[in-house]
Amino acid sequence: MRETKARNRPTARTKAAAAQSGVELELPPMGSIIGYKLRRAQLFVFQDFLTAFAKMKLRPAEFSVLAMIAEKPGQKQTEIAGKLGIKRANFVALMDGLERRGLAQRQKAAGDKRSHALQLTPEGSAFVEKMLAVWREHENGLIAKLGGAAERDRLIALLDRLLDQSGEA
Amino acid sequence: MRETKARNRPTARTKAAAAQSGVELELPPMGSIIGYKLRRAQLFVFQDFLTAFAKMKLRPAEFSVLAMIAEKPGQKQTEIAGKLGIKRANFVALMDGLERRGLAQRQKAAGDKRSHALQLTPEGSAFVEKMLAVWREHENGLIAKLGGAAERDRLIALLDRLLDQSGEA
Repeated sequence: MRETKARNRPTARTKAAAAQSGVELELPPMGSIIGYKLRRAQLFVFQDFLTAFAKMKLRPAEFSVLAMIAEKPGQKQTEIAGKLGIKRANFVALMDGLERRGLAQRQKAAGDKRSHALQLTPEGSAFVEKMLAVWREHENGLIAKLGGAAERDRLIALLDRLLDQSGEA
Repeated sequence: MRETKARNRPTARTKAAAAQSGVELELPPMGSIIGYKLRRAQLFVFQDFLTAFAKMKLRPAEFSVLAMIAEKPGQKQTEIAGKLGIKRANFVALMDGLERRGLAQRQKAAGDKRSHALQLTPEGSAFVEKMLAVWREHENGLIAKLGGAAERDRLIALLDRLLDQSGEA
């Protein structure tokens, strides 16, 4: 368990390069590197998302924010930004965009004038309904690629281990 | 298989929000969304990488380029950029940085004056040796979190399905 597969089985090309340079480098195949493969998969999924949402002009972070406001209206900016791991400055810019488009709005929170409670506008609620239909098709495409919902659950569980989480979140 | 778990089991909060707004929104829990979870896991792994490589001042893309040059010296810029999915302009900037640091160099490829073959310098070779030792520790930490090399292989295999790949790459 302490040694990776790459260490145990250097590729033919690795050996050739090592012979050439005189150094045994024990290079891992790129495709077995967790961070590299995660990044490629994440970029693929985001590209697929952007293609699905090209007409609605929606980015993944905006999707997440709208979904979280819809799930529990009245949550504070800081709460949603924290849960999603979005930096404050980026979150403010994102909310500005959603307000400009008339989809969401900030309201002064009762009892705390500095914090803002987030709400969907009526247009925002209608947008979220359409958004979820488009998203479900995108997500079902990914689930089909993985081989079904059980494989999706397996993938999520493995990613949760990296994140030290045990479901939900 | 066509329906996600989220559709079948709306959360309590989703139902509450739906009751409040009068619309059945069928919101997925964020933690079950493939793209969202992939992005969180990728950011975590990259952050862990950057922490591990803080002293060596190395970013993930630079790691990949150095590893690929070390694996097969003399490969062309376009070849490596293509395999790694790095855009031309970004790749040129990245190679400029590696050249400035004295780790790698471009050489005019024989027979094709417009393309450059990439090589490590002697300093670059020594750097790559240290880099691989640091990387292995970082990677072994991730593998331990996943629960062992078999779980790592399972994760890579699932990500390969999203990418329509069957190993290697």
